[in-house]
Amino acid sequence: MKALVYTRPLEVTYRDEPDPVAQSGEALVRIDAVGICGSDMHGYHGHDPRRVPPLVLGHEAAGEVVAGARKGRRVILNPLVTCGRCDYCRGGRANLCPQRKLIGMNRPGAFAELIAMPEENLIEVPAGMGATVAAVTEPAATALHAMHLGGRVLVRPINEARILVLGGGSVGLLSALWARAMGGRSVLVGETNALRRASIQNAGLEAYDPLTTQPEENAFDLIIDAVGAKATRAAAICAVRPGGVIVHIGLLDSAGEADWRKITLQEVTVIGMYTYTAVDLAASAAALHEGRLGNLTWVEERPLSEGARAFADLHHGRTAAAKIVLRP
Amino acid sequence: MKALVYTRPLEVTYRDEPDPVAQSGEALVRIDAVGICGSDMHGYHGHDPRRVPPLVLGHEAAGEVVAGARKGRRVILNPLVTCGRCDYCRGGRANLCPQRKLIGMNRPGAFAELIAMPEENLIEVPAGMGATVAAVTEPAATALHAMHLGGRVLVRPINEARILVLGGGSVGLLSALWARAMGGRSVLVGETNALRRASIQNAGLEAYDPLTTQPEENAFDLIIDAVGAKATRAAAICAVRPGGVIVHIGLLDSAGEADWRKITLQEVTVIGMYTYTAVDLAASAAALHEGRLGNLTWVEERPLSEGARAFADLHHGRTAAAKIVLRP
Repeated sequence: MKALVYTRPLEVTYRDEPDPVAQSGEALVRIDAVGICGSDMHGYHGHDPRRVPPLVLGHEAAGEVVAGARKGRRVILNPLVTCGRCDYCRGGRANLCPQRKLIGMNRPGAFAELIAMPEENLIEVPAGMGATVAAVTEPAATALHAMHLGGRVLVRPINEARILVLGGGSVGLLSALWARAMGGRSVLVGETNALRRASIQNAGLEAYDPLTTQPEENAFDLIIDAVGAKATRAAAICAVRPGGVIVHIGLLDSAGEADWRKITLQEVTVIGMYTYTAVDLAASAAALHEGRLGNLTWVEERPLSEGARAFADLHHGRTAAAKIVLRP
Repeated sequence: MKALVYTRPLEVTYRDEPDPVAQSGEALVRIDAVGICGSDMHGYHGHDPRRVPPLVLGHEAAGEVVAGARKGRRVILNPLVTCGRCDYCRGGRANLCPQRKLIGMNRPGAFAELIAMPEENLIEVPAGMGATVAAVTEPAATALHAMHLGGRVLVRPINEARILVLGGGSVGLLSALWARAMGGRSVLVGETNALRRASIQNAGLEAYDPLTTQPEENAFDLIIDAVGAKATRAAAICAVRPGGVIVHIGLLDSAGEADWRKITLQEVTVIGMYTYTAVDLAASAAALHEGRLGNLTWVEERPLSEGARAFADLHHGRTAAAKIVLRP
């Protein structure tokens, strides 16, 4: 098969790779669409010790089963492969399974024509939903998981909350779209890239440039840090309202001081979060299919064979798209 | 009246002070018992910019109304004076009122024979409850608030949780006692002072010395950091189980890195918290009176006139008591 292989930092190569072989309990899926995630970029930059080249990256995927129990069905991949037996798996938090593996990280990824996946990791695509939209399910589920964990700690309903999203990549943008879909009365997105800010505004959301503007201090009930850098953590703690909630999704870097004085004296809750559950994925597929997250004009399709160019464009900030989806 | 006045770092002086004058809506209360808090010690060390000498410290107090609507009634003080009108006050989170003032910090404190307090800050002492036990209500409410905020984020009932408390001062010890009272199956307290460890063990709890022993990594569902120092924050993040909760109460220092990588990838929630609500205070008074928090053998009474010695003993770690209560 053809695959886009991360061969060394700042290099992905479209080349022939051996076809995957489905093990017992696995299906063989032909990939129709697969998105480039910020974490793929993090790997591509050589900054993720868990992503070691040569490696097929990619975990935001939809396709069709070509061998397995559900042959012929169109499916979205749950890219998180877990044991299914531990307390986390059985308690609705499979994303914390100590045995968890992620395709495109410690299993082969989906920037390829074919992938072998456990049958239980296949989620049916709603009838009539396109592959590219289906591939957006995964980042939408990450954003939903963030809104869910954050909303659960808020003392008042989420539709009363002032919400700030730091980072207008797909997870940030989808968090803002979920916030709007949940009735959030005020949703603001901080994004440094001017092209992306225009896309965010096209999606009907308010955006600002954190390099020139600071959001109001002590003002936001819920903050989604979809970057996870020293600067965004500091901005989040500054902007959060007393008693407010910060959800920390991204992990651009993990160092830096935090203002523990404000966190403590103003009773701020900081929630770390990782991925999603199968329930988040199913709910996200339904919401995308029903148009509850808008029209996705910020998603751009390109051929997988031109993946190297897509990675380079993202690296140089040359695209307005919050999400590039590759089509094998 | 006589009062114990914080006159400069490492000095409190027992001396004559003018009697307080009750303003409209205030009662005059004769203090019967008032505990020394870790935050009083923090002020005494000159490390709290909010506590400026000369200042009467002390906010964990019980006494009797000598002038006001409830003259003759025995009362516990809610030391947090709030506006009563903002969304926080009316929404059950008066501890976050932007106008909040704390006696012994930005209002005169209770290390004195008399104090003027707003009528709405008086909580009736349960019939038959001694003044010294009543004075423990305030730290018990802080601990209850921590357990409540932490427990609300846990995914499973608190009685299934493995609980670690860092710091065996009164708030730490009371957190552990609340954890036991709530059915916590495993409660462990870290405390560096050997005398205090003995008191913790006398209270029927398990204690260890963090200078020589490290608690199991990735093992605790709920961690109460009742110290709030660089070292305890690091220990908490190390010991917390994936998906677990850290409640950050103390504020010994506010600097230091945090392991954002673990917080994010293992979905850890960190909750900053400050004081309590009037509901926490009332629930704590009831629990103390009913003996649900044990027999309080770790509380020591001393005369207010010997307060300087008590502060010095706490400073030098020369007492086994997790709480010294001063009696004017």
